[in-house]
Amino acid sequence: MNTDSPRLPRAAVIREVGLRDGLQSIATILSTERKREWLRAAHAAGQREIEVGSFVPARLLPQLADTAELLADAKGLPGLFASVLVPNLRGAESAIAGGADLMIVPLSASHAHSLANLRKTPDEVVAEVARIRAARDAAGSKTLIEGGVGTAFGCTLQGEVDPAEVLRLMQALLDAGADRVSLADTVGYADPAMVRSLFAQAVKIAGDRFWCGHFHDTRGLGLANVHAALEVGVARFDACLAGIGGCPHAPGASGNVATEDLAYMLGSMRIDTGIDIAQLLALRQRVAGWLAGETLHGTLWRAGLPRTFAARAPSSLAASVSRRNP
Amino acid sequence: MNTDSPRLPRAAVIREVGLRDGLQSIATILSTERKREWLRAAHAAGQREIEVGSFVPARLLPQLADTAELLADAKGLPGLFASVLVPNLRGAESAIAGGADLMIVPLSASHAHSLANLRKTPDEVVAEVARIRAARDAAGSKTLIEGGVGTAFGCTLQGEVDPAEVLRLMQALLDAGADRVSLADTVGYADPAMVRSLFAQAVKIAGDRFWCGHFHDTRGLGLANVHAALEVGVARFDACLAGIGGCPHAPGASGNVATEDLAYMLGSMRIDTGIDIAQLLALRQRVAGWLAGETLHGTLWRAGLPRTFAARAPSSLAASVSRRNP
Repeated sequence: MNTDSPRLPRAAVIREVGLRDGLQSIATILSTERKREWLRAAHAAGQREIEVGSFVPARLLPQLADTAELLADAKGLPGLFASVLVPNLRGAESAIAGGADLMIVPLSASHAHSLANLRKTPDEVVAEVARIRAARDAAGSKTLIEGGVGTAFGCTLQGEVDPAEVLRLMQALLDAGADRVSLADTVGYADPAMVRSLFAQAVKIAGDRFWCGHFHDTRGLGLANVHAALEVGVARFDACLAGIGGCPHAPGASGNVATEDLAYMLGSMRIDTGIDIAQLLALRQRVAGWLAGETLHGTLWRAGLPRTFAARAPSSLAASVSRRNP
Repeated sequence: MNTDSPRLPRAAVIREVGLRDGLQSIATILSTERKREWLRAAHAAGQREIEVGSFVPARLLPQLADTAELLADAKGLPGLFASVLVPNLRGAESAIAGGADLMIVPLSASHAHSLANLRKTPDEVVAEVARIRAARDAAGSKTLIEGGVGTAFGCTLQGEVDPAEVLRLMQALLDAGADRVSLADTVGYADPAMVRSLFAQAVKIAGDRFWCGHFHDTRGLGLANVHAALEVGVARFDACLAGIGGCPHAPGASGNVATEDLAYMLGSMRIDTGIDIAQLLALRQRVAGWLAGETLHGTLWRAGLPRTFAARAPSSLAASVSRRNP
């Protein structure tokens, strides 16, 4: 038995994806003004990486039709690294035109899921990334390209997804010109042992270009999976405020891990996120008001921070926490 | 960075504590007949360690007044290892008389919590364990004594609890004659880094006499904490069906980790628990009906098992799972 504690990262980034992955999966359409308020408040709470939307046709996702406006807003917030999802070259051209810091191209390692959701095979997505890279370079743009490999731990349509195929596609994305790659448990099938094994191999292959872990909490293992990924050195995670988003295949189930719960876990572990949790919980309360009728998730909001949290949190946060919890 | 996967246990025990820790913390009083039904169904689903109640005066916990009857019932179920909680020598005498396989003596490492809840200092509890050991040996009884160190990660009254004090008290329990020791995060303050560090030290001290981890999911980290404990070789965890129990200090918050979610995580990680999850989910549904109006927890019940689960689960379970999910 290995009882040595793995060296955990000293800091980690929580990338807020509530404005994209969260909002795209629920019925409520939030107004652009509300989204702006969310964006500004998340920034004020210390979030520095936010996925503001998706450049897909508005007829497919009316919830995200204002992505260009939000991207412009985000660029006005100091120090904010703004990303958008782009399904294809056309979306990438919008991201480049809008000056996004990063664009995420989703690829599904499950061939069945890829055909059903993206209407392309995974290798056709890789070819699209090569075209996006060429367009980006031709435009002299600095927008980074992230290839996001989804259904990396299995798929509701296909069932098993071979880890070797996941890693092959990740390598193919890098070869095609992706600057960053990430892995997503799109349907909540991963467990900590699977995550540790696959993420360790992914980090070995991609090194610093391995960018982000994206975990859905569909079966309650989201934070345990983050813990497993932290142990192999991954230090950036997607999350949605209030765990919004759900899963089309499991009505009522959670979406991504909840931003506030993840920020609490990392803060308690003395991994600096720069996030002021009290401000985040206040924002959660506002967003919950806007999303009345939607199923929200997360647990910290009920129980509040432990009495001992201020003493444990990284020094950059302890001051603000102890100011709020005297 | 250490990317080697720690060697995880090949099998683990989930000790059901819903009939004690769960029921003692909620308003509904379940009839003895319902409890018997729960006990039998849990046994039929493969649970082999169950805490059936607590030998405390019925005026303090009317919910558990039928502990002696349930213990007698449990002894009739083949292969079931039945435990009870005993706060003192008088309770221990009842456990010995009833032929419990194990009796858990709770000790709170937080002096403030200990005085408030047990009306004894932690060292007075250690002295009581010595008296219990003497009584057990004098009676020629085989009932094992477990010293359970609670508030091991902090306390809502006192705040910080020094890990050195937790380990000192654990050693003192062993010296006083406890056959087993365990650690509990009574109020949901632990994080995976804290768990890994403290449990590794505890296992080093107590060896095979380190028995069980008890995690409350108050802030959503319950399963991540189990994962951290698994990594240092701990292979027995308390859990409550449907996460019942709550936390008196956080209305609406979860109690212990949910048995069904933990069974799913372990099964997916190929750690054998002997539990048939489909049967467990069916039992959860019955218990949820009996506890109408109580806040229940857990996530698996909404989403169901992944399509890929049968192929991943330990061989003892795969057959029954695939029989139910064709």
